[in-house]
Amino acid sequence: MLALVYDGTTRLESNSPEPRPRAGEALLRVRRAGVCSTDIEITRGYMNYRGILGHEFVADVVSAAKLPAGTRVAVEINCVCGACDMCAGGLANHCRRRTVIGIDGRPGAFAELIAVPERNCHRLPDSIGEDEAVFVEPLAAAVQITRQVKIEPRSRVAVLGSGRLGLLVAQVLARTGCRLIVIGRNPLTLEFLDRKGITAMPLRDLHSRFDQDFVVDCTGSAEGLDIAMSLVRPRGTIVMKTTCAGSTPVNLAPLVVNEVTLLGSRCGPFADAIAMLARREVDVASMITRRVPLARGVEALRDADDPRQIKVIIEVATIGSA
Amino acid sequence: MLALVYDGTTRLESNSPEPRPRAGEALLRVRRAGVCSTDIEITRGYMNYRGILGHEFVADVVSAAKLPAGTRVAVEINCVCGACDMCAGGLANHCRRRTVIGIDGRPGAFAELIAVPERNCHRLPDSIGEDEAVFVEPLAAAVQITRQVKIEPRSRVAVLGSGRLGLLVAQVLARTGCRLIVIGRNPLTLEFLDRKGITAMPLRDLHSRFDQDFVVDCTGSAEGLDIAMSLVRPRGTIVMKTTCAGSTPVNLAPLVVNEVTLLGSRCGPFADAIAMLARREVDVASMITRRVPLARGVEALRDADDPRQIKVIIEVATIGSA
Repeated sequence: MLALVYDGTTRLESNSPEPRPRAGEALLRVRRAGVCSTDIEITRGYMNYRGILGHEFVADVVSAAKLPAGTRVAVEINCVCGACDMCAGGLANHCRRRTVIGIDGRPGAFAELIAVPERNCHRLPDSIGEDEAVFVEPLAAAVQITRQVKIEPRSRVAVLGSGRLGLLVAQVLARTGCRLIVIGRNPLTLEFLDRKGITAMPLRDLHSRFDQDFVVDCTGSAEGLDIAMSLVRPRGTIVMKTTCAGSTPVNLAPLVVNEVTLLGSRCGPFADAIAMLARREVDVASMITRRVPLARGVEALRDADDPRQIKVIIEVATIGSA
Repeated sequence: MLALVYDGTTRLESNSPEPRPRAGEALLRVRRAGVCSTDIEITRGYMNYRGILGHEFVADVVSAAKLPAGTRVAVEINCVCGACDMCAGGLANHCRRRTVIGIDGRPGAFAELIAVPERNCHRLPDSIGEDEAVFVEPLAAAVQITRQVKIEPRSRVAVLGSGRLGLLVAQVLARTGCRLIVIGRNPLTLEFLDRKGITAMPLRDLHSRFDQDFVVDCTGSAEGLDIAMSLVRPRGTIVMKTTCAGSTPVNLAPLVVNEVTLLGSRCGPFADAIAMLARREVDVASMITRRVPLARGVEALRDADDPRQIKVIIEVATIGSA
């Protein structure tokens, strides 16, 4: 089958072996997939991952124990053991023996077929289109913030970074009614926010404020933390969404002196994200600026790193191909 | 008067001008003071402070509006405006306009006399000796941890660093009945913990564990965070006590992936620390390994940076000198 792999270089494999589902796994035919900044970070060394890339996708069931063939699904990316202390303690996303689709020890979704644990599959309602469905995974990661901290209408919240994740986070947090500001570099995405009625500010206009109750770092860059520390109020909270390869110099003294809470935040609840998309509470479709067939997948990754693009979609199966 | 100052170099000033108390301030005669790692960090550039060093001390009132002359006091180090949003919001320790004794914009206690806001003074009960009284400030900083996080008997807690602060933190946390381990480099301080019945382990024997509910970083070194991230469990909490000068490379990806909470922690409640000392719940006196008269204060700072010493006390007024 056709697959986009990273093995030191990003390249297309035309005869990648088809997956053979193990016990409890469903075989899926991928329809569309989204390119995430994590995919790009992987090609820079993050997670030392080698294999088929891609973890945001919508697919049709080919074969499964309980799900009928043809069922359209979104898929949770953490594949867990169900037995370790984390799984037993209700923190399965932190399973000690987990593999993560397209990120850690398990092939990803930039391929025609993928085998995944059947329990990771979420059936999608018809009201969610193909395009929207690709956003379930990153939208769930945005929703996770509201599970970890209590944002209220009076809260002052700054989202740092107006990239793909920042735009989703901003839309999710805007729904809390909080006093929201998004700070970013890219005029294209700042305008997107403007059109949504969300206050956006170019990074170059920013000064130290020390007045935000919450700062969400979606910069995808290690320097985001320094900026976040200059925005958050004493005893405020920085939610850290950025994962990137390598180490960067940070001065953590302001965090201690101001008794700031820095909170790591990763994957989130699929059910909530699916419900939000079904109710059209966030606009994801207009974030798509480019569609690329899997056969030109290398190009898709390059485009996703271009500031003139927001979301790049990889078309895997053309409509009706299943 | 005699005073130990830092103005680019650490030196003794024999005719430092005597302080003139402003409205609301008490004039105090310093009896004893403790050398803290923060004093040493200041001489390495932390806080860009210039002036008389020292912020852990016991003193007698010379003159004050309400406190009788001769009252023995411990003194909170944050001098606050009482009017800004932080003061109004019950977070006076984070006052926007604060000065901090011997650390930020206000002369310290390695001097014969000091003027401080009268409301910062805590009268000491007779049951607390001169030596113990010097520890009120750092002990309060240790107690602050238990105000910020809920440590329970079943909690697994690692204290990283067995320096002056680590020893106080360990003793405070041991009282919660938690499953405590202290990790340090210095055989001298690890033996101190052993004698107190607190489990101590040399840093060189440590492996990644990812199993601690709480890790308290008292290393005073920027590399402490990397070690803490390898100890704390997913969704666990790192309490950060370390403040040091400059920036250090840190890879924060494990914090995000494991959704760790990193919590800055600074000054704490004096009343609690005074009560603990009065009830002899912690042993501070046997941490003192050296006493130096103020006239040899430069030596005191050097000694405090020597691993053969734990707590160095600067004797300012000899008994009966007030």
